[in-house]
Amino acid sequence: MKKTFCISVYFLVYLLLCSVLLSQARDTTRPYTEAANQIISTGLASGKAFQFLSELTAIGPRLSGSPQAAQAVEWARKKMEELGFDRVRPEPVMVPHWVRGPIEEASIINSPSIGNKRLKVCALGGTIATPEDGITAEVVEVKTFEELQARKEEAKGKIIFFNRPLDRAKVNVFEAYGGAANQRGQGAIEAAKVGGVAAVVRSMTTRLDDVPHTGAMRYDDRIPKIPAAAISTVGANFLSELLAKEKIVKVRLKLTCQTLPDVESANVLGELRGRERPEEVVIVGAHLDSWDKGQGAHDDGAGCAQVIEVLRLLKELQLRPKRTIRAVLFMNEENGLRGARAYAEKDRPGERHVFALESDAGGFTPQGFGFSADSATFQRIAGWAYLFSSIEADRFQKGGGGADIGELG
Amino acid sequence: MKKTFCISVYFLVYLLLCSVLLSQARDTTRPYTEAANQIISTGLASGKAFQFLSELTAIGPRLSGSPQAAQAVEWARKKMEELGFDRVRPEPVMVPHWVRGPIEEASIINSPSIGNKRLKVCALGGTIATPEDGITAEVVEVKTFEELQARKEEAKGKIIFFNRPLDRAKVNVFEAYGGAANQRGQGAIEAAKVGGVAAVVRSMTTRLDDVPHTGAMRYDDRIPKIPAAAISTVGANFLSELLAKEKIVKVRLKLTCQTLPDVESANVLGELRGRERPEEVVIVGAHLDSWDKGQGAHDDGAGCAQVIEVLRLLKELQLRPKRTIRAVLFMNEENGLRGARAYAEKDRPGERHVFALESDAGGFTPQGFGFSADSATFQRIAGWAYLFSSIEADRFQKGGGGADIGELG
Repeated sequence: MKKTFCISVYFLVYLLLCSVLLSQARDTTRPYTEAANQIISTGLASGKAFQFLSELTAIGPRLSGSPQAAQAVEWARKKMEELGFDRVRPEPVMVPHWVRGPIEEASIINSPSIGNKRLKVCALGGTIATPEDGITAEVVEVKTFEELQARKEEAKGKIIFFNRPLDRAKVNVFEAYGGAANQRGQGAIEAAKVGGVAAVVRSMTTRLDDVPHTGAMRYDDRIPKIPAAAISTVGANFLSELLAKEKIVKVRLKLTCQTLPDVESANVLGELRGRERPEEVVIVGAHLDSWDKGQGAHDDGAGCAQVIEVLRLLKELQLRPKRTIRAVLFMNEENGLRGARAYAEKDRPGERHVFALESDAGGFTPQGFGFSADSATFQRIAGWAYLFSSIEADRFQKGGGGADIGELG
Repeated sequence: MKKTFCISVYFLVYLLLCSVLLSQARDTTRPYTEAANQIISTGLASGKAFQFLSELTAIGPRLSGSPQAAQAVEWARKKMEELGFDRVRPEPVMVPHWVRGPIEEASIINSPSIGNKRLKVCALGGTIATPEDGITAEVVEVKTFEELQARKEEAKGKIIFFNRPLDRAKVNVFEAYGGAANQRGQGAIEAAKVGGVAAVVRSMTTRLDDVPHTGAMRYDDRIPKIPAAAISTVGANFLSELLAKEKIVKVRLKLTCQTLPDVESANVLGELRGRERPEEVVIVGAHLDSWDKGQGAHDDGAGCAQVIEVLRLLKELQLRPKRTIRAVLFMNEENGLRGARAYAEKDRPGERHVFALESDAGGFTPQGFGFSADSATFQRIAGWAYLFSSIEADRFQKGGGGADIGELG
């Protein structure tokens, strides 16, 4: 999950309608109202999104390269075919195949006050393993990369502990996330730059619990690669308090994950062919892959269910769009964006993308949409908000986009 | 849960501020902004509502008259005292003491196609028990009271099965609930009027599952009392399909619940005394009691947590209101409204209630408020919506209220 915006299936359909249907009268002051209401009541009364979500999540975690990710591709293809979408096809793409090992452990070692103590950690996606015996080193806690730079002499040979929490006072949790996530993505690089031997990063959550959260990290080929793990927020607070008290704290970190050769996987596409301008394509997208520690129901199973439901509902209601509406279930959003890149790079002669919508903020109560568009276009789109007011999803804001559709830009 | 509106703790505080503080400058175009933002960021960063909810729900189900309801009263009183609210006190009230028995069963008996089959049912709150051997009778399915009247000859001596589902196409689920709930509340009376021997009511949920939902039912002293149970939505569909196929279906219903003598319980009050007009009282209310089949986290634990948090946050921020803000945790909303009535009927010399706010719609993402007020007052209140826009809770609508504060009118 990266930059995202809130959406739900019937709203999504709405918007598509707004942008692609010509069948409604243009001379009324509130066009599309009837179709929109039809979509809302049908979606509410007999929507299938939750059924789709239940089937997809029953497959389990769908990390790129895993057998479950392959099953998800197959499930999506079959589902779209069963529902009678046009031109259903997987578009192959090579994806990374990182595998979490059976061991991911960290312990405080030989503390004068508490002796040894286990901390809950998990490997960050893409990290290398530690040596077999683990890495044992003193811990240096920092809140920012600037602080790390300022203390670089001290950091040499140490485990660098990035402990800047998400700012809970932010109304928008994505903003809070955005204010902390560079520690996870970039922490191993910054730690290695100053001679650190491993990175341990506070989990990206506003919650105080003992569950470490995985997520993407990256390396820079010019900088030595060192292992990186997430620590639970409870563990992070404990470690921080112990450091304040004892100054010198040693931790042993052990990770057994590995990166295997790339695997062939696929984006899954299906569409409703446009009746007037089929060459103009509107994308509705979400990502099929998930992290490996859960079922990915919110991130991004909900989005996938919504995308399929958009096309299904339009078909059920026999609302044939003017332009082609294409469902794209992307592969590998979480740790590589290979699917999004492959989709964007593929030559598609005779086609023109006119609009792309992504759902990757979880399956919550929808409140509106964020749009990346010039002011004139945004003003035009904002004029359609009345269609969403009965379901209170009419907050249309400038600024939006998502990781997958971002590659189209 | 009856008529309610969506609310959350910091919004609640907001509103109170809007209506009661004089400390902010009146000459700016957007007064109260600073205090509102302070409340928002403090509530988000260090709010205690979830902690309160966790403590309250740990007590368990809190049906009026139960030991757990008494514990909840004690918990609330202690909590308000610990937090230093003014004039903390329980106000005694006698409440009904209905107890669900150990047995609540229904079975289809001697069906030609399926033989006997158990159906998931539960007693409705307040129902009498069946005779010890249960009631065995044919089933008549109806969707409305009018249909029941039209078929009253047929209904005599039968179990009346009320099977009108909630309308899933309604955007507002409270409206869908309102369209079906008379079957539960009034079903036993209407069934008895036509000589029915028991009432079985489709559970009040849009969900299709095998969990029967309890809720309030009532009797009319002029009409014979017959037992009433809720059946799961899956069970209701099954029974309905069997009736369509076999026409004559017999069911045995067995309930062992009983109504014990009334018990003394209490509303729990605490306040922040107004600094300028202490005699003018603003109520923030929710109900302490819950049904007995769950922990009552949403209905209405969340409301109780919010009410306490409103006063706690104001105290923490040293925002002393102009008028008195009174937290009222009502007892017995679910099956009697005795607490609300006792509060409303009590003589309170020298006091005047100027505003009452109730939270009883669950702990969801807040979107706004509903107001029962004349147009001029509503317009004035609507002018404060800007204070809620940063948290997207600025939907101010005419029409609101709640079961407990409704007794004040």
